[in-house]
Amino acid sequence: MADYRVPLQDMRFVLFDVLQSPRLWQSLKGLGEVDADTAAAVIEEAAKICEQVIAPLNREADEVGCQWADGEVTSPPGFREAYQVFNEGGWGGLGGNSAYGGMGMPKSLVSAVEEMLQGACMSFGLAPMLTAGACLALDAHGSDQLKALYLPKMYSGEWSGSMDLTEPHAGTDLGMIRTRAEPQADGSYRVNGTKIFITWGEHDMAENIIHLVLAKLPDAPAGTRGISLFLVPKFIPAADGSLGARNAFSCGALEKKMGIKGSATCVMNFDGAQGWLVGEVNQGLACMFTMMNYERVVVGIQALGTAQWAYQNAVAYARERVQSRSPTGPQNPEQEADPLLVHPDVRRMLLTAKAYNEGGRAFYVYVAQWLDTAKYTDDADLRTRAQNRVALLTPVAKAFISDTAFESAVACQQVFGGHGYIREWGQEQFVRDIRITQIYEGTNGIQAMDLMGRKTVAADGALLAEYLTEIRDFITADATALAQLSLADSLNAAVNTLDDITRDLIARAAINPCDIGAAAVEYLHVLGHVSYAYLWAKMACTAKAGEASVFLDSKIKTAQFYFAHLLPRIEGLTASLKQGSGTLMALADEQF
Amino acid sequence: MADYRVPLQDMRFVLFDVLQSPRLWQSLKGLGEVDADTAAAVIEEAAKICEQVIAPLNREADEVGCQWADGEVTSPPGFREAYQVFNEGGWGGLGGNSAYGGMGMPKSLVSAVEEMLQGACMSFGLAPMLTAGACLALDAHGSDQLKALYLPKMYSGEWSGSMDLTEPHAGTDLGMIRTRAEPQADGSYRVNGTKIFITWGEHDMAENIIHLVLAKLPDAPAGTRGISLFLVPKFIPAADGSLGARNAFSCGALEKKMGIKGSATCVMNFDGAQGWLVGEVNQGLACMFTMMNYERVVVGIQALGTAQWAYQNAVAYARERVQSRSPTGPQNPEQEADPLLVHPDVRRMLLTAKAYNEGGRAFYVYVAQWLDTAKYTDDADLRTRAQNRVALLTPVAKAFISDTAFESAVACQQVFGGHGYIREWGQEQFVRDIRITQIYEGTNGIQAMDLMGRKTVAADGALLAEYLTEIRDFITADATALAQLSLADSLNAAVNTLDDITRDLIARAAINPCDIGAAAVEYLHVLGHVSYAYLWAKMACTAKAGEASVFLDSKIKTAQFYFAHLLPRIEGLTASLKQGSGTLMALADEQF
Repeated sequence: MADYRVPLQDMRFVLFDVLQSPRLWQSLKGLGEVDADTAAAVIEEAAKICEQVIAPLNREADEVGCQWADGEVTSPPGFREAYQVFNEGGWGGLGGNSAYGGMGMPKSLVSAVEEMLQGACMSFGLAPMLTAGACLALDAHGSDQLKALYLPKMYSGEWSGSMDLTEPHAGTDLGMIRTRAEPQADGSYRVNGTKIFITWGEHDMAENIIHLVLAKLPDAPAGTRGISLFLVPKFIPAADGSLGARNAFSCGALEKKMGIKGSATCVMNFDGAQGWLVGEVNQGLACMFTMMNYERVVVGIQALGTAQWAYQNAVAYARERVQSRSPTGPQNPEQEADPLLVHPDVRRMLLTAKAYNEGGRAFYVYVAQWLDTAKYTDDADLRTRAQNRVALLTPVAKAFISDTAFESAVACQQVFGGHGYIREWGQEQFVRDIRITQIYEGTNGIQAMDLMGRKTVAADGALLAEYLTEIRDFITADATALAQLSLADSLNAAVNTLDDITRDLIARAAINPCDIGAAAVEYLHVLGHVSYAYLWAKMACTAKAGEASVFLDSKIKTAQFYFAHLLPRIEGLTASLKQGSGTLMALADEQF
Repeated sequence: MADYRVPLQDMRFVLFDVLQSPRLWQSLKGLGEVDADTAAAVIEEAAKICEQVIAPLNREADEVGCQWADGEVTSPPGFREAYQVFNEGGWGGLGGNSAYGGMGMPKSLVSAVEEMLQGACMSFGLAPMLTAGACLALDAHGSDQLKALYLPKMYSGEWSGSMDLTEPHAGTDLGMIRTRAEPQADGSYRVNGTKIFITWGEHDMAENIIHLVLAKLPDAPAGTRGISLFLVPKFIPAADGSLGARNAFSCGALEKKMGIKGSATCVMNFDGAQGWLVGEVNQGLACMFTMMNYERVVVGIQALGTAQWAYQNAVAYARERVQSRSPTGPQNPEQEADPLLVHPDVRRMLLTAKAYNEGGRAFYVYVAQWLDTAKYTDDADLRTRAQNRVALLTPVAKAFISDTAFESAVACQQVFGGHGYIREWGQEQFVRDIRITQIYEGTNGIQAMDLMGRKTVAADGALLAEYLTEIRDFITADATALAQLSLADSLNAAVNTLDDITRDLIARAAINPCDIGAAAVEYLHVLGHVSYAYLWAKMACTAKAGEASVFLDSKIKTAQFYFAHLLPRIEGLTASLKQGSGTLMALADEQF
């Protein structure tokens, strides 16, 4: 199969040319020192490790998986060594708080590194990803003492992080969790309970593993208002960071999964484990949500990174494999047949993946820029606008990128014909791995409910209105170029369609609350498609304005493909959305 | 996980009430003795074996797989015993020629048995499926001597069948095969070459395995016109059927696959193996196509059968698993939360699977009825019409049923949240297993090319026109009922949309041959959606005319869901189809 190659040129195009991140960074306090040269050097160095050290582990990790014995977990071959290399480069702390040893880089740069890390090997990438997520929650809500003790070791990767939310009977509905935390005289807590689906909850790569555990105090209110967050380390460190006693919890088993088999998905049993409160009592869910906006975007990025490799693998195959002749006559007369790439349907599949991948890349950088703005600006109005945009688009980044990445990987598998189903070609692994990104960190249905319910209906469409104003301003400002590219009318029409259907849905939701859930997923797909149209239009305009090249020309052509063949999907989605929830709710339970 | 239950009530509804198969059978020579009672008894008996003997093997077969050692293949636990039970019931010969020991049942009945067999365990079901396919080709094209020697043993299952087409460099493009057949003085041939992806090419369930092998004679013309078909048995039988010498071929390896792991996917090496010509020299591909119309429908049926179990499993989970509250307030106040089934988005996913599965079941029976008509009628005009309908709809039955089954299984996996990704819940296996049905027996892209190129453009739309006339006649005849069900306008509009886009595509194909391939897959999905709309409308009319019941009411409501939320997808598809192939072909090879 084709080696993974970090799409550096595409990343630079989006980061520097289309979305002009350096200009943003220089406008924000604390990011002013990050310039294009620094950023370019960062992604180039990260690319070397991802291509040379991490990506080569991906296949074998899927075959061998993690091994459990007596509560210990052995990671797949090469993971320990790669983890060392990754940490020696300081990559774990790239976006971390510089007051505690992090490098303080903007999310809009870190996200590109996340794409390549996750694209090279999702199973491996999950370990630093979970650690970074735990650091975010700790940095935002932990006491100074906890931060000083834990953050430096976690940024360095010496200690890894893990998030312990789900329980056997409580996944989406965390209000039902049963894990208990009893306060102790010394200010710490004793945690008892069972958590499942804990990614890298136990392993042999780091010397300590720091669990952030959701649990309830004995007197906690029922439901989500009674959840608190606790830091529960595998080994309890002394104040100088040296490791002390083994804490009272263990990994009871590993799950057997469809994919990401190289990662450990642990059942964790807490038997009076010592933990420390993070944030306020009963504010655990709020503490988790601090990191959720970041983490959910990363799940989309994971999916995209993997779909990118799937695309590269399929393109390589479509160039090499000869089968049948072009519809316009032999293109390759000296051989028995033409390469697959001559066939329109093969191009359709590859372009679907290309357009979604590259649209998704621009989209995640765009969202990450708003995350940076929200975090670093000292302009209160701008901060509010940025927070609103992040709130609106985070569920889209998680769900739409992962849904389209799954579709792309399936299409790229299809390019291989029968060979796509055979493990040695690697393509089927991508499909199995990406599938989880539609499920974890809140299923895509839950993301869509968040978008439709809290972010749209409850906000009476205000967040979307701000976003549409930005897009319409762009359409006005770049009207000439968009018209010359033949994109103006379609983009305008798509924005109006989204606007109309949003008003319609908000009005209907006031009458029938079932209409929210009934519409959610399709609505998210409409918003996703319009967002990608916006970013493809931006990319095409940037490409048109640049010095003509094969690369820039491909951006324009891919934009035109996107507008011709993918954006029209909103027609079918809105036709369904207009039908409301009636036929969904009509069946009695026993009629299923 | 939920046990597999054959949807007998649904099958009877389609077979007897909606499509009135007994009336058809009684009009056809050779099928007159098959009545509703016989047919009902057949599917009930078959259901017992599928539920009790075969379905329980499905999970372990996936875990254990087939084992290869020194050319011998050991089937998964229980397969040998189940194979005996299946054959003792005579099920292998259900559709077989009664002149050679088959039971001569109509395809429209056999197809229901195929659904349950494949739904219970695809990996197991592939063995009888390949045998039945080989029997069809042999019955249609073999000499009387070959038929008399082989068919009875194959119908009984004592000997199994296998189809050997693909080679490492030649999949879709069979014109490139290199396997050679040298004529011998005794009238037989010596076959040399390597075949890959040979399902159940070697195993321990039957005492002999009969391979139908595509190969080229030394003086054969190039390409597909030089392919001949050979029967190559594992053990060469004497005239009395007793087994003789081991033939000179062997299984070199098994493929490791994404799914259907319980089936053996063999590399077969033919080293001067003795074989006998089936049909005329250089007519091998035509001989294969005799069975293809049958086999391709079965691939769709496989997918559907598996998606049906995925649906049953998801419904059971959605009833039992409680998580969060209904948008209309607690439905289950005595418990901590409501069942998943209260949530509109969960219903959307389940209804998508239900509507596609039940629409697909009606569709395969409908196509099978035309296969029966084509085979058994003595009315030449009717035979032509039936052959045309089969030609038009076979690629749709293969590709659309499998595409929608895959989508359904993915949706049903999503219902489980994180548990859907864990192997023990069984749901992820269905997704992996179904995925192959979109690929083998001609990828769905190839099916779409067949539909769009040969069956539509080359026929100048004549085959579709006959089909649309039938649908429009139905709309006219059942106008009142359709209007009362609120289905009339949508069905009419969908038929007109299909009609219009077909004319448009035929006109454009004359100018630009790339437009055929560019449109193919989306066009097939339009035709599929309109076909299901036709059959859902028929089902709803039948249900409306029957005595009111919970079951019939669910058919009406599911039809209305289909029309409200799935049929509208043709809006997006046709919007894309109108854009032609321009943006697909614009990119130079290096721009991918």
